[in-house]
Amino acid sequence: YCPLSKNLHFLQFMRKKILFIFIIGALSYYTFAQPNQFNLMPWPKEIEEKASKFVINADFTISISADPKGRVHHAATRFLRRLGNRTGIFIEAGFPFENKKGDVQVVFDQISKLHLKSDESYTLDIHEKGIKIQAKTDVGAIRGLETLLQLTSHNGSAYYFPGIYISDTPRFVWRGLLIDVSRHFQPVGVLKRNLEAMASVKMNVFHWHLTDDQGYRIESKVYPKIHELASDGLYYTHQQIKDVVAYANLLGIRVVPEIDVPGHASALLTAYPDLGSKDGYPYQIERYAGIFNPTLNPIKETTYTFLENLFKEITPLFPDEYFHIGGDENEGKHWDENEEIQAFKKQHNLKSNHELQTYFNIRIEKMLQKLGKKLMGWDEIMTSNMPKTAVIHSWRDENEGLPKGGSLISAAKNGYHTVLSNGYYIDRMLSVEHHYNKDPIGDILLTPQERSKILGGEATMWSELVTHTTIDSRIWPRTAAIAERLWSQKNVTDVNHMKKRLKHISFYLEELGLTHLTSRDMILRNISHHQDINSLITLTKICEPLKMYQRNKGGTEYKTFSPFKLFADACTADAEDAQVFERIVLDFIINSPTRNTKKLIYFLEKWSQNHLLFSELEQNTKIKPLESLSKNLSELSTLLAKVLTHKQITSNELNVAKHQLTLLKKPVIDVELVIWKSLDMLLTYCESNYFKI
Amino acid sequence: YCPLSKNLHFLQFMRKKILFIFIIGALSYYTFAQPNQFNLMPWPKEIEEKASKFVINADFTISISADPKGRVHHAATRFLRRLGNRTGIFIEAGFPFENKKGDVQVVFDQISKLHLKSDESYTLDIHEKGIKIQAKTDVGAIRGLETLLQLTSHNGSAYYFPGIYISDTPRFVWRGLLIDVSRHFQPVGVLKRNLEAMASVKMNVFHWHLTDDQGYRIESKVYPKIHELASDGLYYTHQQIKDVVAYANLLGIRVVPEIDVPGHASALLTAYPDLGSKDGYPYQIERYAGIFNPTLNPIKETTYTFLENLFKEITPLFPDEYFHIGGDENEGKHWDENEEIQAFKKQHNLKSNHELQTYFNIRIEKMLQKLGKKLMGWDEIMTSNMPKTAVIHSWRDENEGLPKGGSLISAAKNGYHTVLSNGYYIDRMLSVEHHYNKDPIGDILLTPQERSKILGGEATMWSELVTHTTIDSRIWPRTAAIAERLWSQKNVTDVNHMKKRLKHISFYLEELGLTHLTSRDMILRNISHHQDINSLITLTKICEPLKMYQRNKGGTEYKTFSPFKLFADACTADAEDAQVFERIVLDFIINSPTRNTKKLIYFLEKWSQNHLLFSELEQNTKIKPLESLSKNLSELSTLLAKVLTHKQITSNELNVAKHQLTLLKKPVIDVELVIWKSLDMLLTYCESNYFKI
Repeated sequence: YCPLSKNLHFLQFMRKKILFIFIIGALSYYTFAQPNQFNLMPWPKEIEEKASKFVINADFTISISADPKGRVHHAATRFLRRLGNRTGIFIEAGFPFENKKGDVQVVFDQISKLHLKSDESYTLDIHEKGIKIQAKTDVGAIRGLETLLQLTSHNGSAYYFPGIYISDTPRFVWRGLLIDVSRHFQPVGVLKRNLEAMASVKMNVFHWHLTDDQGYRIESKVYPKIHELASDGLYYTHQQIKDVVAYANLLGIRVVPEIDVPGHASALLTAYPDLGSKDGYPYQIERYAGIFNPTLNPIKETTYTFLENLFKEITPLFPDEYFHIGGDENEGKHWDENEEIQAFKKQHNLKSNHELQTYFNIRIEKMLQKLGKKLMGWDEIMTSNMPKTAVIHSWRDENEGLPKGGSLISAAKNGYHTVLSNGYYIDRMLSVEHHYNKDPIGDILLTPQERSKILGGEATMWSELVTHTTIDSRIWPRTAAIAERLWSQKNVTDVNHMKKRLKHISFYLEELGLTHLTSRDMILRNISHHQDINSLITLTKICEPLKMYQRNKGGTEYKTFSPFKLFADACTADAEDAQVFERIVLDFIINSPTRNTKKLIYFLEKWSQNHLLFSELEQNTKIKPLESLSKNLSELSTLLAKVLTHKQITSNELNVAKHQLTLLKKPVIDVELVIWKSLDMLLTYCESNYFKI
Repeated sequence: YCPLSKNLHFLQFMRKKILFIFIIGALSYYTFAQPNQFNLMPWPKEIEEKASKFVINADFTISISADPKGRVHHAATRFLRRLGNRTGIFIEAGFPFENKKGDVQVVFDQISKLHLKSDESYTLDIHEKGIKIQAKTDVGAIRGLETLLQLTSHNGSAYYFPGIYISDTPRFVWRGLLIDVSRHFQPVGVLKRNLEAMASVKMNVFHWHLTDDQGYRIESKVYPKIHELASDGLYYTHQQIKDVVAYANLLGIRVVPEIDVPGHASALLTAYPDLGSKDGYPYQIERYAGIFNPTLNPIKETTYTFLENLFKEITPLFPDEYFHIGGDENEGKHWDENEEIQAFKKQHNLKSNHELQTYFNIRIEKMLQKLGKKLMGWDEIMTSNMPKTAVIHSWRDENEGLPKGGSLISAAKNGYHTVLSNGYYIDRMLSVEHHYNKDPIGDILLTPQERSKILGGEATMWSELVTHTTIDSRIWPRTAAIAERLWSQKNVTDVNHMKKRLKHISFYLEELGLTHLTSRDMILRNISHHQDINSLITLTKICEPLKMYQRNKGGTEYKTFSPFKLFADACTADAEDAQVFERIVLDFIINSPTRNTKKLIYFLEKWSQNHLLFSELEQNTKIKPLESLSKNLSELSTLLAKVLTHKQITSNELNVAKHQLTLLKKPVIDVELVIWKSLDMLLTYCESNYFKI
């Protein structure tokens, strides 16, 4: 006889669940002294709170001091749309005023030219009667508008901006995002929404990696075979490039194009094989990932004529003063195999392929100089005779065999301007914490002169394993934390505070049309063929794609046209439940089993029961391989929940659990179960504390 | 004493839930004789099943008979990508062959010119060793590829195409979708993905409604004030128009532009007020929806010069033989108020504004004829002296005061080619069934000659209440059913079969990048400020946006820049749970309470319990208004579940329930609770059968 109706029981379960969600929620939100409550990112330089607030109503207005067609007008208009959609308020005035004072007054002195010395500082003053954003330049003003929008707050009856005074300015002048459109082409719409996302976290450089072995993504009227034969039809027309560059400019973002030479040339040489270093080589657009041999021939004058004509055609599309020539990862194999090139080296006393490449680089540098451009390149270009106007793009550090500080610090010490990407390779699927903790300078001592050479950094979205469908979920939200690293003061380093804010920023990014949150369910619907995806969602919250480049086994597994709507593509770095679970396990072990046992059991039961739902799915070859993971996890979770409840584990149970753990350690279809370490720690604890013979 | 642990209880609940989902699923899938199992849409003309199947492996290939750069090459390449992503198979050959035979052989005779006589028929033959698609034209061939892709099937260990022979051809030659880019601008990416969706259900006309009171969306080099002053900066450049038209062409889709004259002219007259009918009128881009007075002046020669120059500039961008001039909804108020226009009418013996507009139309028709274009216009243009080359676009029928068959049938009888949109206004948020049941001809008797005049139809996506964020969810999946109505044979009318297939087609549409499924959760995250959205999801499954034009109260509520990420925007036509619930209630009442009681209680408990989750949400002004709906529904559901369980209802309960029903009938924040009728029927049943004094 059971006195409780199923119904009541269910309600109790729901209540418990809700209460628990609340507890977990509270656990993940550390309490901070004011004004740390604000979900600002990047965190501003100075911030003072006031008691007052400005309430947002339908008669809300913005006025701008000048520039009726420019950046501030655009940003203020977009601000009104975004605020309207966020609050649901039917704001009457859909555009900013230029002739009378609005609730928000945006005041600035001059239009920025977007270069390294551009001022991006602003002050933001919110009081009860109105709001003022003041800046030297229009770009500073639009940075201030983004801060204001992030401050939107609400209670049950109104939306408001909290009273606050902010004075803000960036630590580094170069805060970039590289998007590789060669390995997987990214349509203009994808670029534009990512530009908007960048602007929303105050990034200011879009590094457009336009060419590589897998595709040359630019239209050329001078050398039309480039887009005809080297792009699979996926390239940007001149008009589209102008459109993207103009849009970036409107958002205060510089665009640095990269045309990678002399390596990474498979696609280009497919169209123009005569420029290659190996006669008769069957050049083809590369379909795999990796480092390949096709390389431009540095001893043929036709190579330089070709590049000069191409650069003459392309450079006017990109008004920025910098032009990135890549220059990386040329292993020179085809040079070694070419007798004429070897003879040339001897003749010109070039001792190595690296010296030959320097010869090539210097010629390119002069070419670009004539076209009014300064050269930027990956750190391989830093050789003794490279002019000091070049910008060294640092991608190598201690892990790549260089001394501490890597090429960034040596570039600065050598007198080069330099930009850091080492540590910001977001395609490696590492945690946000990893990237956030990477400070360009760290504890290295520099002279003011050396310090001034370090311009900032760039997150790099290499796209071997990323399509237009998944790219947003690979870039965001982690890149917002890198944006903070590059904008905010050096002492802004609290990872928990960052994570708490990042959660909100992630939702703000969705408002801009980014798909980083919607793509998960879309992919799960695809792999399950439209069945109930809840059991799969639970797994995505504890699984992450294989890190570094383990996923692609040295570039041999995925072709550029392989499927990328797989389970691994639905998973992201920083798996949600795994992070919370780890925190609870640590607190359980280190501080208090008592206050954490229930929380642990909540998760263990969730995973225990999840397999039931999973096993109801009609199987197919895409989800079948997850079955053992789901089952083993379920069994181990059931066991651990029981052990925690009864505070005892038998020898047999211990063996079973250890066996399960061994099985769960193995990656499955390109994902790893990232709660594995936590489960292992938990079991070890149980063994030490609850073991009964 | 309760012998069951919570855990076990939960498991039982889950099992029950899963079993129930299964039952509901089975209920919604009617069983059909073979070959109705296939999720094809539009349904093909002839279909024969075979016992064999073709298994898809990594060595899968496609060969095409010709046209290495054209439509078939593009479609076959896309086919390989889509198939790869759908199945997860790493297909080795990423592109079709032209020189050897593939597993799929696509054979066709000629390249289609895309006009009314273009052949779109094809045959598709799938046997164990290979697949053949044969067609007269390349467009027929790509239609066949879409059919093949819809046939992708799987079991636990493989993907395959079922053995089948299909011979298919469309019933109507004009199967269109109108997208209004004036009321809300739609970026190129949105148009392209909708073109892909159209092609996937074999639609072949994109009607591009480019101008209206709320914005003129085209660049003009001749009259640059058009895009400078009449578009808010949201317009298509010539390059972008060419790009869209070329992309449509690649998909076998004609593009018919609409430049609406002489009414709907607010935006245009903002830029060129001298062309207006009322001197000194403060023309402004219209922000509301409705019918407005600003109208071109039909008696000024400058009007005709302007239009001639504009058309000369624009028509080359659109290679199609038809050019749509709108011509609708000019009420002539400004003409009445202009003495010169009245004098002109007298002088030329034009008895009404309608006759004056005819005078205008005839001049426009001649102008377009000189430019090699045939005129198309809304049915108001059908006057006695309109040349028979014009296409009459029918939007009025009995509901608009015309005789049965409306302007479509009278146009056909008058000897005009004609296209139907009445019944296909998808912006009205009516059910898919409503649109599907609208046959252009129905039971009206026509001569073969008259029948040949009826070209087909167009779904119309007017965008007063639709932004680029929500447009996909307003167009799809319902438009796929309209596509079937226009392609498939007249006797394909089984609504349940259509709905069963549409569910799958909807997921296939998502594969193309459409956001009709992802936008719901995105909006719910927005309105809840990132809280648990499950309670809101439950409500979206039983609420629909207000139908017809009730939502916008005559155009006075929403401005073009008002928020459209509200609860109503997360809801769609054909609310999922409401449909299933209604079917169960009807079966309960008409056939068998016994077999349906449990099913009803399942839903009632779901809604009963949902309010608990809802009430845990931190409230804000966007979700607060839903509270009473959620609460009243919960209380009524609890009561009804109890009544059904005990098969008795007291007088007091009856009164309470009726009161709840009255409250629930009232629309809340632009949605209606569409299970209302079912609940009402259920209560009436309970009153008649279970009432105890």
